[in-house]
Amino acid sequence: MEGRGQEEERQRDPKKEGEMVDDGKLTMEHVFKSTAVPPWRKQITVRAMVTSFVLSLVFNFIVCKLNLTTGVIPSLNVAAGLLGFAILKLWTSMLEKFGFLKQPFTRQENTVIQTCVVASSGIAFSSGTASYILGMSAKVAVQAEEGNTPNNVKTLSLGWMIGFLFVVSFVGLFSIVPLRKMMILKYKLTYPSGTATAYLINSFHTPKGAKLAKKQVAMLFKSFCGSFLWAFFQWFFTAGDGCGFSSFPTFGLKAFAQRFYFDFSSTYVGVGMICPYMVNVSLLIGSILSWGIMWPLIEAKKGDWYRASLSASSLHGIQGYRVFLAIAMMLGDGLFHVVYMLLQTFRSLFAHNWKKRESSSVILDMADQSSDTQIVNYDEQRRTEFFLKDQIPNKVAFIGYMILAAISIVTVPFIFHQLKWYHILVAYLIAPVLAFCNAYGCGLTDWSLASNYGKIAIITFSAWVGLGHGGVIAGLASCGVMMSIVSTASDLMQDFKTGYLTLASPRSMFFSQVYGTAMGCLMSPLVFWFFYKAYSVGDPDGSYPAPYGLMYRGIAILGVEGTSSLPKNCLKLAVVFFVAAIVMNIVQELLRRCETKYKVYRFIPSPMCMAIPFYLGGYFAIDMCIGSCILFIWERMNKQKANDFSPAVASGLICGDSLWGVPAAILSLVGVNPPICMKFLSAAVNGKVDGFLGG
Amino acid sequence: MEGRGQEEERQRDPKKEGEMVDDGKLTMEHVFKSTAVPPWRKQITVRAMVTSFVLSLVFNFIVCKLNLTTGVIPSLNVAAGLLGFAILKLWTSMLEKFGFLKQPFTRQENTVIQTCVVASSGIAFSSGTASYILGMSAKVAVQAEEGNTPNNVKTLSLGWMIGFLFVVSFVGLFSIVPLRKMMILKYKLTYPSGTATAYLINSFHTPKGAKLAKKQVAMLFKSFCGSFLWAFFQWFFTAGDGCGFSSFPTFGLKAFAQRFYFDFSSTYVGVGMICPYMVNVSLLIGSILSWGIMWPLIEAKKGDWYRASLSASSLHGIQGYRVFLAIAMMLGDGLFHVVYMLLQTFRSLFAHNWKKRESSSVILDMADQSSDTQIVNYDEQRRTEFFLKDQIPNKVAFIGYMILAAISIVTVPFIFHQLKWYHILVAYLIAPVLAFCNAYGCGLTDWSLASNYGKIAIITFSAWVGLGHGGVIAGLASCGVMMSIVSTASDLMQDFKTGYLTLASPRSMFFSQVYGTAMGCLMSPLVFWFFYKAYSVGDPDGSYPAPYGLMYRGIAILGVEGTSSLPKNCLKLAVVFFVAAIVMNIVQELLRRCETKYKVYRFIPSPMCMAIPFYLGGYFAIDMCIGSCILFIWERMNKQKANDFSPAVASGLICGDSLWGVPAAILSLVGVNPPICMKFLSAAVNGKVDGFLGG
Repeated sequence: MEGRGQEEERQRDPKKEGEMVDDGKLTMEHVFKSTAVPPWRKQITVRAMVTSFVLSLVFNFIVCKLNLTTGVIPSLNVAAGLLGFAILKLWTSMLEKFGFLKQPFTRQENTVIQTCVVASSGIAFSSGTASYILGMSAKVAVQAEEGNTPNNVKTLSLGWMIGFLFVVSFVGLFSIVPLRKMMILKYKLTYPSGTATAYLINSFHTPKGAKLAKKQVAMLFKSFCGSFLWAFFQWFFTAGDGCGFSSFPTFGLKAFAQRFYFDFSSTYVGVGMICPYMVNVSLLIGSILSWGIMWPLIEAKKGDWYRASLSASSLHGIQGYRVFLAIAMMLGDGLFHVVYMLLQTFRSLFAHNWKKRESSSVILDMADQSSDTQIVNYDEQRRTEFFLKDQIPNKVAFIGYMILAAISIVTVPFIFHQLKWYHILVAYLIAPVLAFCNAYGCGLTDWSLASNYGKIAIITFSAWVGLGHGGVIAGLASCGVMMSIVSTASDLMQDFKTGYLTLASPRSMFFSQVYGTAMGCLMSPLVFWFFYKAYSVGDPDGSYPAPYGLMYRGIAILGVEGTSSLPKNCLKLAVVFFVAAIVMNIVQELLRRCETKYKVYRFIPSPMCMAIPFYLGGYFAIDMCIGSCILFIWERMNKQKANDFSPAVASGLICGDSLWGVPAAILSLVGVNPPICMKFLSAAVNGKVDGFLGG
Repeated sequence: MEGRGQEEERQRDPKKEGEMVDDGKLTMEHVFKSTAVPPWRKQITVRAMVTSFVLSLVFNFIVCKLNLTTGVIPSLNVAAGLLGFAILKLWTSMLEKFGFLKQPFTRQENTVIQTCVVASSGIAFSSGTASYILGMSAKVAVQAEEGNTPNNVKTLSLGWMIGFLFVVSFVGLFSIVPLRKMMILKYKLTYPSGTATAYLINSFHTPKGAKLAKKQVAMLFKSFCGSFLWAFFQWFFTAGDGCGFSSFPTFGLKAFAQRFYFDFSSTYVGVGMICPYMVNVSLLIGSILSWGIMWPLIEAKKGDWYRASLSASSLHGIQGYRVFLAIAMMLGDGLFHVVYMLLQTFRSLFAHNWKKRESSSVILDMADQSSDTQIVNYDEQRRTEFFLKDQIPNKVAFIGYMILAAISIVTVPFIFHQLKWYHILVAYLIAPVLAFCNAYGCGLTDWSLASNYGKIAIITFSAWVGLGHGGVIAGLASCGVMMSIVSTASDLMQDFKTGYLTLASPRSMFFSQVYGTAMGCLMSPLVFWFFYKAYSVGDPDGSYPAPYGLMYRGIAILGVEGTSSLPKNCLKLAVVFFVAAIVMNIVQELLRRCETKYKVYRFIPSPMCMAIPFYLGGYFAIDMCIGSCILFIWERMNKQKANDFSPAVASGLICGDSLWGVPAAILSLVGVNPPICMKFLSAAVNGKVDGFLGG
């Protein structure tokens, strides 16, 4: 989950995709000059809405499954753009063949679909079904033990989840509309993901690009089918617990006991192919450091550092070290980035103002400040023209924000009686500032810090409300309020950048975002519910451990109880890891600035990524490293092909495996069990079992 | 084993490899004109002998392992040529770098190595360690029940096996020397395998060829390593019986019970890539027909057709149907080919004589008849010149044959007291005729029928000696005497053809064959002994079922006892399959001659191949079909690459997996057992086991 922004950051190189189009010596918009841009109402077509609906459902499943397994979610923008193109191209080609095609498929329509899908799958992430909402449930509360009082537990139900999401999710939409022009036209922020997606969509709609896109789609389809069939095949061998490929002790039984094994999950192989090498290496380093070295050492102190009689999942035992050290490292990393981002934002804003005053330009107008942007070339001229064509008045945005915030302030205390109206009012007063910071920082670095702001909200509000008044629930709920706004701000600004580069109308984008958000608010809880009912979600040893559920609750407990609840030496170690995370970031930043010859900074692992396997173990890191290896070999064999097709193959792997989750969950719900158990026994146990079966 | 000749037949297309060299418009020998041909003594270098030794050992392991698992052996000539080239090229390049190279690496040297390796691995096949010799052992005798008397069982021991092989194997060498010139210069027989190998070796030694060869060697090395590591990895999971990848119920437990599963053996995937498609399809058809349809039907008659109380491996029960129907089909196929070959040989000889008489040429001289061969072009002129340079006098050959035969007649009755001197004398009187037939037929069709002649020998001599006097052992031993001569004749004539086309001296070839045969006589029993001691060889349900052991013994029992020992209706069915095999061959032959438009004859399956899975089940047929599929897809993706590299990849797969057998056997001998058992349990049994382990 937290790995998300980071992966988006380095995943695609916009230059590369730009070249693909620019090599005809013409600039992009010259190529598209003769292609008419439809009015904004025609950009939101019925077919686009249907496609968005289908893809939203698919992506909600994928994101939900990833959330519930490890919480590492790669950027799915490329897959969304690619699949949107594939579906509509198929549909329009078919219509054209029979002569029914009335309106050609445009890149604006493609952008609208992509925006809508991103908005709805963004909700799947920020809705926190696998983090703060799951953290409220009794199942997770039992694991944490501390704060397991009726006041601090909330039974999950579809009704309030959907209601809560509807109330909090739309506010963010209105908060960013006024910022739109400033971020994109005035500051000309890059938004790497949004830019890359725009180049992808543009390239699909040039004749040469369509050919490549077709091949990519074919590749995606192949790896999709392969991955789906592989998951289907695996299913047959999972008749019981510890059966099947997901329990394959690839490196031996001892390594398996320390959660080092390759679990044959094509999802995470695909994720590893999309994520930058350093993310995967960081995960691996983190898992070796924790499960390979630290946990065995701490377990040797059993009876001394913590009571030996504790259950394996108790936060007072070894599990406590796992969870709180991970939290410490994540908080350290998060804190660094928040502070760093704030510093950068203010410096950048100050520099802008200063420059402007010097050139005695007009005073900064937050909303309509495009006049001082120099129109340097044809592309930019045309893009700006279309970007300013269909305005959304700032008044509408302000009033919308006020009304929605008011509704939220009134209704949220009904859902969570632990939160009072003034808590939420405060949240809505701070939120736009944080949203601005996040959108700005994301534009610079492609790094969304939504979950970090959310974590800060948890600690603040938990401490404010206090344990006796249900501070745990209050903290988790306020995390939801905060994250929705902050996350939406950065996600949707990325989309506006995409829209800017593909000449999509801001108005069509806005409505598509509204539509996507509404879908997301409905789908995300429904899909989560589907998994929640079919599987034992949140069980640390099950297939769906949903690590962030316990993490987020742990943060809330820290907020209400302080550090007194931790096992022995855990606080000391947590401080060490907290500081280490900050130091690592500072070292990296210093190296980035001072040492440019070897670029050593690239080899500093990410503390956030290192922390995830602290809790989960190394198996998915191994999957992802295998993905990296495949990509590495592929790149060495044929760089161009690897660049063109690896995102498609990876997306196919992820989609296929994740989609098998649907029939698998249905089979599980109707009580059809797999017929075979592939079991792994040590030689000694095997002898016993053979004796038992033979006798 | 029986599939061998057949696979050699269609495996490589000599034309293709010829083109590779001829496209420079110059004929082969023009290209090589400036390259000196070393005298024959310099063709047999120390480095060549060392290389031959190493490769012989490797190939003996491979052939032995294949013999003991399924008995299907692909042609390894290409691999031998390739590896010989790789090793010596590496060595000479290294020496050249340091300035120590005295004698350059020539194609004649390469041919000498190839010949030597073929000779020694030919012994691994004709020594019958997995067929007639294994058939004498008590272990197999127990399975057959009939004829399990002390007189008809011989305890295996290294001593007599090596002695027997030395006595019988060299006779064949002398029997073919006089035929050499007639077959190659006079009748200009094609010997497709020999020709293909010669083209390969020639192409390696032209500058362009060396480049391709290097790539092929690199490819072979990669697939070798992959296959070896895969086998190593598999080993860890085989802690007990029914554990590991070789018991993977890929298509479910029901199919597994009928021996339909993919056993992840890279050896047979490689074998499948080398064998022609129709061989693999025939195997699959055979396994579906037998294990899918016939055996379940016959098992339904349990208690009626055969006693229900019989053990599963009794030849009076279901196992009897499996073995004897397979024998019937093989004998039918064999009989057809022997008769057909004899007819063709005589017709061809008659045509030659007739033509000669008509052109009033000199009378046929069996030995030195090269004068009437028209020298049509430069290549042929040069080749003939070198082929006739170093003569081996016919007198030497005749005297050699007589002496060796005499030794054999004296010593073999000491090893097998069931055989009398006159039995062996008769065998040596008939053998040269059959050897001639086989060498001639092989030159025409590339099909060696050695094992068929061997089977005929078993029936004849078993019946002659009779059960009371140890007819089973007598039959099996006479099979060895016969097969050695007949198999050597065709194998080595192939080599002479290779030598003819690469200008290797016949004398260096002969000595290399002697050296190879001697190595084979030593290595083959030793390698077999290695497996025999480390594993339970000959156990129908083990990893090394060695199917031909029981088959050959079954034939001997048929010889001594007649058909009275078969279970109910087995004879009727056997007759049906015997006739069906002949009919299928006749139909194919007719179609080949009459229907040339669609070439339907290509789609008639081979009865010999269909019969093998009757006994073994379909698992290895599935491996081989997967090999076929890989090749098919590869060919569709890139025909040229597939043609150039698939033999190398397949050889690598076979060599790597087979070579793992060495460390695995050593580990087994020193008592190191794999640590993990990968077990496959049905859901119900798994529940029980979980209860047992939990309680």
